[in-house]
Amino acid sequence: MDRIIIGIAGGTGSGKTTIAKKIFQAFKNDSVILSHDYYYKPHVDLSYEERTKVNYDHPDSLETDLLVEHIKQLKAGNAIKHPTYDFTTHARTEWKEMQPAKIIIVEGILIFTSKELCDLCDVKLFVHTDADVRFIRRLRRDVEVRGRSMDSVMNQYLHTVKPMHEQFVEPSKAKADIIIPEGGHNVIAISMIVDGIRKKLSHEE
Amino acid sequence: MDRIIIGIAGGTGSGKTTIAKKIFQAFKNDSVILSHDYYYKPHVDLSYEERTKVNYDHPDSLETDLLVEHIKQLKAGNAIKHPTYDFTTHARTEWKEMQPAKIIIVEGILIFTSKELCDLCDVKLFVHTDADVRFIRRLRRDVEVRGRSMDSVMNQYLHTVKPMHEQFVEPSKAKADIIIPEGGHNVIAISMIVDGIRKKLSHEE
Repeated sequence: MDRIIIGIAGGTGSGKTTIAKKIFQAFKNDSVILSHDYYYKPHVDLSYEERTKVNYDHPDSLETDLLVEHIKQLKAGNAIKHPTYDFTTHARTEWKEMQPAKIIIVEGILIFTSKELCDLCDVKLFVHTDADVRFIRRLRRDVEVRGRSMDSVMNQYLHTVKPMHEQFVEPSKAKADIIIPEGGHNVIAISMIVDGIRKKLSHEE
Repeated sequence: MDRIIIGIAGGTGSGKTTIAKKIFQAFKNDSVILSHDYYYKPHVDLSYEERTKVNYDHPDSLETDLLVEHIKQLKAGNAIKHPTYDFTTHARTEWKEMQPAKIIIVEGILIFTSKELCDLCDVKLFVHTDADVRFIRRLRRDVEVRGRSMDSVMNQYLHTVKPMHEQFVEPSKAKADIIIPEGGHNVIAISMIVDGIRKKLSHEE
């Protein structure tokens, strides 16, 4: 049996995680979500202060080679042990086992900046949401959920998130097969994509 | 039986007609294509010279009310007689009969600028192609197929096509459920959309 690899990219706050979860829910036990975020490089050599200054929006901050290897393993039907990353301590935590599934959903803002990841994906989805809406969602999440100050969120957004978005994320949209406007609330796009995947799956079996 | 109405918009030269034809071919006798272009207002009162100066990229140049009425008729299972428009004489020519079909494809650069057309469409697709590529396709078509001079194509593009695109077509992209990058050659998007429509169709029957 061939497995189907679905890549989902989009800027911070675009709603790509919601889309990933909705596709996951549609297929339940037949799918897994592998997040590029799990693969942030650990900086055990750096002080906590230095770690907070790492540019987490640049492709070099991620161990993409390992993600590529893990996708190949899942595709071949093998279980993997993937890292996880703790954003509060900026360090790698436990390694978690993941079983292969028919549908492997790979999500992350930067996945389409990697040619190897693009080549591995059978379907590449890019979630487009206007930058102001994306900023508002990020501000709300970081202030309300993560307890950060408005000033620090605005500064990080203007100094790294936005420039990295424009340099890497936005141009990678051109690699997508389908662009989904306005993220997780787009019922028609999600239902058509789920039906399309289901059809692909029945072809493969 | 409910019918499915698929709207396909996108700028000049985006490849929307190719997408419309591919969806049509996938469903053959179960589908019809209704083009907004058929509904250009005739200007019998104007001289030929004056007709060539009409702004054909503005929504007011189209008899959209009649298109809306015709879609409602097809949806209700009734045959229609739609106008046709001759771009060489800039006049309405014959009225053609169209039978209703399960899938009604409505295509045109300006269809999502009409709230009524948006509301009628079950699925709204927007074909995104970069402006330079769209211009090159239009230039080739108008010079090679329609025998126009390069200068006249460039002038029309800069003076009406581009400003109208920016004022009407591009903002209407926000109404789309799915954005298809790079038009007619996007095999993955077309196959997923066709499968999604097929699934919708089997639900409706």
